[in-house]
Amino acid sequence: MVPRYPLFMIAAMELGGTKTVVAIGKSDGTLEEEYRFPTTRPEETFRTAIEWFSSKGTPTAIGIAAFGPVQINPKAANWGDILPTPKPHWTGFSITKPLLEAFPGVEITLETDVNAACLAEARIGAAAGLENVVYITIGTGIGAGVLCDGRLLHGALHPEFGHVLLPRKDGDDFKGTCPFHNDCLEGMASGPAIEQRWGTPGGQLPPDHPAWDTEAWYLAHGIQALLAIAPPERVVIGGGVSQVEGLHKKTEELVRKLAAGYFPAVENSPYVVAPKFDQEAGIKGALMLTGIT
Amino acid sequence: MVPRYPLFMIAAMELGGTKTVVAIGKSDGTLEEEYRFPTTRPEETFRTAIEWFSSKGTPTAIGIAAFGPVQINPKAANWGDILPTPKPHWTGFSITKPLLEAFPGVEITLETDVNAACLAEARIGAAAGLENVVYITIGTGIGAGVLCDGRLLHGALHPEFGHVLLPRKDGDDFKGTCPFHNDCLEGMASGPAIEQRWGTPGGQLPPDHPAWDTEAWYLAHGIQALLAIAPPERVVIGGGVSQVEGLHKKTEELVRKLAAGYFPAVENSPYVVAPKFDQEAGIKGALMLTGIT
Repeated sequence: MVPRYPLFMIAAMELGGTKTVVAIGKSDGTLEEEYRFPTTRPEETFRTAIEWFSSKGTPTAIGIAAFGPVQINPKAANWGDILPTPKPHWTGFSITKPLLEAFPGVEITLETDVNAACLAEARIGAAAGLENVVYITIGTGIGAGVLCDGRLLHGALHPEFGHVLLPRKDGDDFKGTCPFHNDCLEGMASGPAIEQRWGTPGGQLPPDHPAWDTEAWYLAHGIQALLAIAPPERVVIGGGVSQVEGLHKKTEELVRKLAAGYFPAVENSPYVVAPKFDQEAGIKGALMLTGIT
Repeated sequence: MVPRYPLFMIAAMELGGTKTVVAIGKSDGTLEEEYRFPTTRPEETFRTAIEWFSSKGTPTAIGIAAFGPVQINPKAANWGDILPTPKPHWTGFSITKPLLEAFPGVEITLETDVNAACLAEARIGAAAGLENVVYITIGTGIGAGVLCDGRLLHGALHPEFGHVLLPRKDGDDFKGTCPFHNDCLEGMASGPAIEQRWGTPGGQLPPDHPAWDTEAWYLAHGIQALLAIAPPERVVIGGGVSQVEGLHKKTEELVRKLAAGYFPAVENSPYVVAPKFDQEAGIKGALMLTGIT
């Protein structure tokens, strides 16, 4: 077999909780080929990924966008390890070692899935050209990637935006679904929280259902916390739950009201937007990771 | 007059709401001489500062730690301007121009006062050696400087941590004192909020007064939001209000409880600490600004 990318093969991997995407492309985010398959046990998932990459050639660089918690600090001894997670079999698994063994000398850049998606949306997507961007995804859980001062934010480990504790909406006595914190943002506004609260999945609730005022309340307060700590110029909200008509606008209006004139960034319009790439933001961002230092 | 620092004179200025500090020293934070005077009208304040600097020589670099809101982004056309503020006479005043006119070619590094204090505490103070540090000050207002991944965080403008909206403590019906947001952190936990809530200034309330449980509640929730967004390895709390015995420990315990095992950084002990420098963190940090790029 003659490899198609004999000199520089740029590869990417998006390791999600339920599906994995591997791809070949360019560090500007251009996807050339991709392959999607279910995330199963770690060894099997990586065997599939490595076989696919190998069938294309030998990658010189791989960008990885991984679910968390994961040690993304390259200075840490356990760089690349999945940290304690309720997901069976994955705790302690190194997602960098199998790739380094298969492709000695390959340059790996590892990020959270949400940071990678944030990078794609901030460089070539719905917030292109801005240096302060937050990408929030709402699905089974809630997570956020943060680009601040042109850099992806990490801090101690990485942000866990879904677990921020926020003021309750007046009259809201829903207990919350988070097994750790009950009524954190994820516990109040994730897909499972919506379904449990209203007895119906979000996808079946019409845009004028009060569920979306509640949803916008918690999202807007989460964004208000971001404004106070790592102020974004624009917020991109993606993920299945976000696709109901009008949610972005409703959230933007409430954020502006909460800001009360105090945070100049919020006066930008549009401020809360849908992603440009959605399903492909993560894998595009993973490709782009190979181009940042 | 023979200038004492003929070749490289490192200067610093801490521009506070009520007092200004000017100093000469080293970019490692060493203070050699300092002079404190009341902040009055902008022109007068800067005349005093410039006269004092001139009496020492010609500064080659000046680090400025300024109250906000202030445009600290060197790429912005209005870099150095004080932005709309209730403080009379200061809105729109440039704090960099008078210094550049007095000392042509001087290299100015401008930061928020809290970011400068954070830098000093993170490099040579109570969080020395850590790359992810938050410095919170509680006095007339509440502000925070954030060092994340070894860099001072800005984002769109700069963090306004005091204005984060947090869950209310059970049974707490205090309206809050913030003219913009009522019950944001500053509105619930600043010096004036404590005095208005309990009818007594914080300095006169004993350490076992319930006021401090309330204070710790809001501080701990503010720190929980930081953990979810720009996770610190350690939090330094300074300012007049923080000086009551036991507040740091009480806050730390509550943060750990709120984290519920989810944020590994919080297991570090001590996690919430008093500053090493307190009154001098800002001016030391301003000196250190001359050493960062």
